[in-house]
Amino acid sequence: MTVSLANKERFIIKVYQHVQLTGNNTTIPEQVDYIINYICKKAKIKKDEIGALGIGSCGPFNKDRGYLVLVAPNLCGGLVKRREIIQNDWTGIPLEQVLSQIYSNLKIDNDAITAVMAERLFGAGRGEDDLVYITWSTGIGSGAFVDGRLIKGKNGNAPHIGHIYLVEDGPQCGCGNFGDMESLCSGEAIARDYGNGATTEMVFLAFNNDDPKAKKVITKAAKNFARGLVSINAILDTKVFIIGGSVFMNNIDILLPMVKYEFYRSFPALSNNVEFRPSALDKYLVDLGALSLVMPEEWIEEWQKKRPWEYAPEAIVLE
Amino acid sequence: MTVSLANKERFIIKVYQHVQLTGNNTTIPEQVDYIINYICKKAKIKKDEIGALGIGSCGPFNKDRGYLVLVAPNLCGGLVKRREIIQNDWTGIPLEQVLSQIYSNLKIDNDAITAVMAERLFGAGRGEDDLVYITWSTGIGSGAFVDGRLIKGKNGNAPHIGHIYLVEDGPQCGCGNFGDMESLCSGEAIARDYGNGATTEMVFLAFNNDDPKAKKVITKAAKNFARGLVSINAILDTKVFIIGGSVFMNNIDILLPMVKYEFYRSFPALSNNVEFRPSALDKYLVDLGALSLVMPEEWIEEWQKKRPWEYAPEAIVLE
Repeated sequence: MTVSLANKERFIIKVYQHVQLTGNNTTIPEQVDYIINYICKKAKIKKDEIGALGIGSCGPFNKDRGYLVLVAPNLCGGLVKRREIIQNDWTGIPLEQVLSQIYSNLKIDNDAITAVMAERLFGAGRGEDDLVYITWSTGIGSGAFVDGRLIKGKNGNAPHIGHIYLVEDGPQCGCGNFGDMESLCSGEAIARDYGNGATTEMVFLAFNNDDPKAKKVITKAAKNFARGLVSINAILDTKVFIIGGSVFMNNIDILLPMVKYEFYRSFPALSNNVEFRPSALDKYLVDLGALSLVMPEEWIEEWQKKRPWEYAPEAIVLE
Repeated sequence: MTVSLANKERFIIKVYQHVQLTGNNTTIPEQVDYIINYICKKAKIKKDEIGALGIGSCGPFNKDRGYLVLVAPNLCGGLVKRREIIQNDWTGIPLEQVLSQIYSNLKIDNDAITAVMAERLFGAGRGEDDLVYITWSTGIGSGAFVDGRLIKGKNGNAPHIGHIYLVEDGPQCGCGNFGDMESLCSGEAIARDYGNGATTEMVFLAFNNDDPKAKKVITKAAKNFARGLVSINAILDTKVFIIGGSVFMNNIDILLPMVKYEFYRSFPALSNNVEFRPSALDKYLVDLGALSLVMPEEWIEEWQKKRPWEYAPEAIVLE
């Protein structure tokens, strides 16, 4: 996980540490607090000088007595047994309950929701009332504004686009669904479909070397990605898709034309007049997203003008 | 189409006339005005005594110079050529532009949006902040509140659930898409899948007589309907599905258990704690929906208490 400290002018310090997946289910919130303590010491500030803590987390969430509980199958071994990678037996991580006892001004949202907030404030979505941010990465996530308002839903999981169905009897997703968007076109799915132990990057390299199997795998993934966008657009009637994430940002020239081709073939009354834009904030989205959640109104104009994220410090890596 | 006149106490008069699909593309709005004139004469009121006109229309919509234009493939022959039934060559119906010149207080929305408003005010959705109304009828439509607010999208088409993809290379929908929700589980799809010239009602009759083909067709439709609800729930993170429409309301005992079974098999973190309720307003939804769009605040409590829609007059049928 990455934790950054910002003041009105800039990002001051940034720390990275691997997420800890062993211990009990409060390990992760305790790790957040541990890194913040480290940062306070390093930056020579007192903990109570921190005005607000914003967290952009993977999802989905559940609610327990009003507190957001993280029920992500890629962190909680107790949720999806077939993921042998995860050694813990957690069925939920009480992120909000633990941290709200330490930080009074705490806001937590899905990282794709914080990303769409940042893109709308500082990036490719400025001035738009209807926009969807999609991250096309190892997994697939999204956040959306409809009618100028962020949509969250009963547990803050809207819009969890990775788990919409696109085909019948498709491959199984980490969430248990068969044939959903993440199972068909995430970076992980591309590597899995190619096989031979290839990474996603290697599949794109092969594509550029005219490897027919890579062509087939990537074309299929892009087609299904676009079909997912058709569905989310049917439901949200959006104006702009902002696409980010490593799979997309590293391969825009390959993927964007494929996605547009398939998208605009669908029902014209809904697909006409929808625009595609690459993420403008890309690698700054994590920090800027979490900050956007809690940024005081009076900072915004200054940040829009000076773009201090472009001069953010490199991350200190903790063991 | 149906046009109703209401005052603070009740529905006063209701008129039905077949929608006219020939002539030029202002025929339908002119027909609306014609029926209103008829109603005014019948009810002995002057046209300028009408406080507001609310319209719940099939969709989708487009916008032309700020006015909603109806671009429904089942009304506009110029949009989808393969529908031989529609003899006109319209590519859009300027509903708002024509009628706003006559009626100053005009509101138009998708009929599934007006339905969800009515269900939330007077029916099965009272007090809910996150709810989706779905009509399962000849076609499939929906309207939704997220975080206590109606979602509309850039052209008022959210959430157009009928056109989300569910399978690859499925049957073609009237909208041109292949394998979308409407093409797979609408009443029309059920009749088409059964074949032999059967109507949807006949397929359900056959189901009740243990006809194996009817079992197969209906089970498949219900499964895909549920898969569509999984997708819309992933995107909107809703709390309550209210289902209405003739296909569902006439066959709740058959369909609801099938839908629930398939829905709750999906990713538990998202499908848990979602409720299903049949429409409480059902056959009153059309009139009450359109009225809900323009009903003055001060009428609401009285209507909630006295439920005057239950005593609405029968429709006068115009040739």
